[in-house]
Amino acid sequence: MSEPLASADVVLDAIATTRAIRRYRPDPIPDADLARIMFAASRAPSGSNRQGFRFVVLRDGPAAIEAKAVLGEAFRGGWNAKRTGDGYDSGSGAADDSPKARTARAMQHFVDNFEATPVVVLVCMLRKRGHITDGGSVYPACQNLLLAARALGYGGVMTMWHLTVENRLREILAIPDAVEVMATIPLGRPQGSHGPVRRRPLTELVFDDRWDGEAAWAVEPAGTRHTSAGPPGSGRPR
Amino acid sequence: MSEPLASADVVLDAIATTRAIRRYRPDPIPDADLARIMFAASRAPSGSNRQGFRFVVLRDGPAAIEAKAVLGEAFRGGWNAKRTGDGYDSGSGAADDSPKARTARAMQHFVDNFEATPVVVLVCMLRKRGHITDGGSVYPACQNLLLAARALGYGGVMTMWHLTVENRLREILAIPDAVEVMATIPLGRPQGSHGPVRRRPLTELVFDDRWDGEAAWAVEPAGTRHTSAGPPGSGRPR
Repeated sequence: MSEPLASADVVLDAIATTRAIRRYRPDPIPDADLARIMFAASRAPSGSNRQGFRFVVLRDGPAAIEAKAVLGEAFRGGWNAKRTGDGYDSGSGAADDSPKARTARAMQHFVDNFEATPVVVLVCMLRKRGHITDGGSVYPACQNLLLAARALGYGGVMTMWHLTVENRLREILAIPDAVEVMATIPLGRPQGSHGPVRRRPLTELVFDDRWDGEAAWAVEPAGTRHTSAGPPGSGRPR
Repeated sequence: MSEPLASADVVLDAIATTRAIRRYRPDPIPDADLARIMFAASRAPSGSNRQGFRFVVLRDGPAAIEAKAVLGEAFRGGWNAKRTGDGYDSGSGAADDSPKARTARAMQHFVDNFEATPVVVLVCMLRKRGHITDGGSVYPACQNLLLAARALGYGGVMTMWHLTVENRLREILAIPDAVEVMATIPLGRPQGSHGPVRRRPLTELVFDDRWDGEAAWAVEPAGTRHTSAGPPGSGRPR
């Protein structure tokens, strides 16, 4: 374990090409693949290795169908509010081929078809302390889950749109009061092709020796593309 | 991107063998490797791709040396409190070869040598909302960072022991008040060999269709080893 992996590039490439996937083919995820994805999720670190993460996997069972319908409503409501609030249809969004308009179409398709998502994972957490760092014991598992899915040819996206229907989900799925729902991750085989992950230039995100300290060594791979406008209300230069 | 990676196993193995590393060789991390690790971190998702994560990388600069000294004190204080509070020296911990005693020795070595850690990354977050899901935009990046480090032959651990000295760190590193320090990640080349990641049996962590629903399909790889006693105060069967 103290030597680099012979195929370090494979791991780094998987990380660099894992992006939010919101259009899925209807194919179910076979049990064996789902087991590998969930196993990877459970290998994540947590405070004192307490493993307070729990994963409720929704597929085609009776509770899952009911929960997906409730989530579908929540996702459509969430997206409608964001579409308006963040001005997806105004400014550059008025042009059909703008990045904003493309994002809006993908989001609309995502929420309109939510119930058909092959797998939805509710990521839960025991022992909430109410501290801003609580998620440190849960979200690493979410990222493992998404990376493992990507490696196996699936895709997903971490969302928080369950928040408006949390109480109904607790009832349907018998989630105890003391347990927090921390994320909702839809998963499936991607439909169509997908662009690369884009972020800000690395030296805007990484500082050397102190806040805002220039990290001249933080060189990106050749050909890295950056976020430009980004979604409305974000992505502006700091 | 819609096909499985030919080398999916490599990615899944990297995930399954990335564990907390707390003993480092003194070798620095070359700039090029550090750049790849931080690039991987920055590929993580965040809410609306806002990329509110910022990474302050502490190496041998003047502010870094001062910050590491302050963190070293905090880590020693944190570990001393935990050692006593969690009873690391009592019960099975009294036996030199018990898992508790081994963990205690590793932790003591870790905190005693903190200042010599080659790289310490403070993971920060802009735009705190004070919601329990805030970490969803930061901790996936921490996991990417740890996985990339592992792939390149380094190791680290996500810690929260900066919390007791946060104000002093802000002063030394000029971190703005509005920015939250979400994690401290020491990194280096592992010293010695390291055991496998252990967790609870997968079916204790993964539920099918509803809370506590048995996920018979959640089969682990052959030979998977589980946490038994775990650290004091945790790891008990639910």
